[in-house]
Amino acid sequence: MNACIITIGNELLNGNTIDTNSVWLGKQLDKLNIVVSEKLTIPDDSLIIEKSIIGISSREFDYIFITGGLGPTHDDITKSVVKKILNSDEYFDEKYFNELKLKFQKRNLKISNINKEQAIILSKCNPIKNPMGTALGIEFQLSKSQVFIMPGVPSEMKAMIKEIIFPKYFKNFDEVENNITILTAGSHESYIAEKIDDLIKLYKKEIKIAFLPRYTGVNIRLSILENKNLDRLIEFKKNITKRLGKIVYGYNSDKLEEIVGKILLEKKLTISLAESCTGGYLSKKITNIPGSSKYFIGSLIAYNNSIKEKISVSKDKLDSFGAVSKEVVVAMANGIKDEFSTDIGFSISGISGPSGGSKDKDVGLVHMALAYKNKIIHRKFNFIPKRNLHREISTEVALNIIRLFLMDKDNEF
Amino acid sequence: MNACIITIGNELLNGNTIDTNSVWLGKQLDKLNIVVSEKLTIPDDSLIIEKSIIGISSREFDYIFITGGLGPTHDDITKSVVKKILNSDEYFDEKYFNELKLKFQKRNLKISNINKEQAIILSKCNPIKNPMGTALGIEFQLSKSQVFIMPGVPSEMKAMIKEIIFPKYFKNFDEVENNITILTAGSHESYIAEKIDDLIKLYKKEIKIAFLPRYTGVNIRLSILENKNLDRLIEFKKNITKRLGKIVYGYNSDKLEEIVGKILLEKKLTISLAESCTGGYLSKKITNIPGSSKYFIGSLIAYNNSIKEKISVSKDKLDSFGAVSKEVVVAMANGIKDEFSTDIGFSISGISGPSGGSKDKDVGLVHMALAYKNKIIHRKFNFIPKRNLHREISTEVALNIIRLFLMDKDNEF
Repeated sequence: MNACIITIGNELLNGNTIDTNSVWLGKQLDKLNIVVSEKLTIPDDSLIIEKSIIGISSREFDYIFITGGLGPTHDDITKSVVKKILNSDEYFDEKYFNELKLKFQKRNLKISNINKEQAIILSKCNPIKNPMGTALGIEFQLSKSQVFIMPGVPSEMKAMIKEIIFPKYFKNFDEVENNITILTAGSHESYIAEKIDDLIKLYKKEIKIAFLPRYTGVNIRLSILENKNLDRLIEFKKNITKRLGKIVYGYNSDKLEEIVGKILLEKKLTISLAESCTGGYLSKKITNIPGSSKYFIGSLIAYNNSIKEKISVSKDKLDSFGAVSKEVVVAMANGIKDEFSTDIGFSISGISGPSGGSKDKDVGLVHMALAYKNKIIHRKFNFIPKRNLHREISTEVALNIIRLFLMDKDNEF
Repeated sequence: MNACIITIGNELLNGNTIDTNSVWLGKQLDKLNIVVSEKLTIPDDSLIIEKSIIGISSREFDYIFITGGLGPTHDDITKSVVKKILNSDEYFDEKYFNELKLKFQKRNLKISNINKEQAIILSKCNPIKNPMGTALGIEFQLSKSQVFIMPGVPSEMKAMIKEIIFPKYFKNFDEVENNITILTAGSHESYIAEKIDDLIKLYKKEIKIAFLPRYTGVNIRLSILENKNLDRLIEFKKNITKRLGKIVYGYNSDKLEEIVGKILLEKKLTISLAESCTGGYLSKKITNIPGSSKYFIGSLIAYNNSIKEKISVSKDKLDSFGAVSKEVVVAMANGIKDEFSTDIGFSISGISGPSGGSKDKDVGLVHMALAYKNKIIHRKFNFIPKRNLHREISTEVALNIIRLFLMDKDNEF
């Protein structure tokens, strides 16, 4: 089975908006073993939309997924294009309009005349409920393709796919695993490629391997070349994992903060943080995980040095060694652990830039420390001296330091 | 002038990688007043690449930009496709290969045979230097279109465009401002559309208007229909801004946290935060801005109630009203302001879910408070009860509350 995704919107062409819809949708379809063979992005232009839908439908894709152009304002034109293509009548759905009115009342909003448009249904199509918004989706058949049109707002599109379209139209599709992504942290592409070179050769004819480098590690994507022999895929994954050891932190959509959370929960440990340059980024990531309140107690974002003193980092130390130093992060990690009464205290202090660098300390420098009982781990790095990247990398590396500490067999918890 | 962007790569279709190249390129071309009328994403497949390039070149775009498929590994096939399409000879560029060898020596890397491939030049094309990598770009004419092929690695593609392609092939293009995006917070699409309906009609023939709703506001994008009369664009922008008043917080790439930072700096005010459900997200956003250390002092991420008590939120209050209540956020805002000695203290406590809801308090509930001198602002909301979205929306709305407070003429700073 194959599919084409069409995304509609000038904002997607002029660089104003990143198209995350088709990425998410591609992933969902991949899981159902539906291959997205083409993606097309076109402007909010009736004629082009019409031409593109007709053109794509002549290419015999099994499915065509279209997002965008279904909201209430005048630049939303997809419905009228479909009306024209299908030469369809329309009718006003009183019942849906009443539902809409209720929705608006609940939110204390006045319904406008524009919203009336949204209750107009094309006779030759099936409307698709919108669990998160007001614009209905559209389903219809066009030559050999089944077409689904959804709103461009990501949460509405996602809810429509997950809650309505997949359960209703794809209920006989099994989620298949025809690929696995192995996630690694703390190593680089050429090291990994060399380390597993013999394995790659061994599985070459059955499994395609691709290296997708990130700043803090490499994703290794394995895909079955012909859709068979899932056992060999799993075997290959296991062999790579065994060979690479601790640098593998998870698979597919696993996240470092999730893995760290799971181990903390398992080992019944609590953690607190003292962040300086990352300014809350590490805390934010850790609390992305539902249930993180079971192990994450809190943080001090000690951006200003005066705040660092609140967790027993002496002014003396700050003056003699500077805020970005081994001595200060060690004191911060110990201080936050004691002050917040947690098992683990973790601290970061660095120079993310653009300013703040000095003769001795370049922009990009960062110190981190982890305190557990009377044990201290300290790390020092020089990361890319670009503010956003530096904060992102520091946060990921911090999570990996915590993970490696928690996995270390020498530590008795 | 118009253009089509073709991006090549399986990873762009199966949801494994977000295509940021075409977004960035779209923005650069937009600045030169070159309209991207279509974007196409296709797999790493010689036949499909060939068919797509030929098909697109028959459509008379002025420019075709292609990214991907130029690296040294086995899945990079674009060059051989072009060779076939143009029926071109090739030659080995000894000089370039020597340059490559030098590059590798400098980095202490051994040059491999695969890299030799990269010094092979198609006779009917012009090679384009790669300031950041080893794969050369390709330029050629195909029917009415000028075609540029670039590597898919974002840093290499960007450097090639900015340092080579634009200066060499687009030197006569002026950067023009043919569009403006007005950013609003705290209102919704249909309200705004109705409020400025007469203005839209007034400028209809000259300026296209598009509404791009976000969760916490709407972006209003104005584009000149025919590239003339920038004055009218600016006039339209001013009229909309005046009509909409305080809900407009900025233009184009402005960010709420940037605007808030600017006003704090101007008014010489400092701020500290006490975050619960957002877990550091608000602090992280505020510290995204370079120079934020001038007004942002620090935060307490009081995830666990025990930490809330550290800023004088009494156990009594927590027990009687619950952590998510007006009483507690007011105490948190006052507490953090006093404890961190800042002008403003801001607090958030909510239930982002999935768990934590109760009979009286649904998931989605959030309280916020701002303390300044003896003044207190309190707000209560029910946002979408999905964890990530709830935290994102809460953070944006918090920034807007701070902005509105800072803009309020009744407040003397």
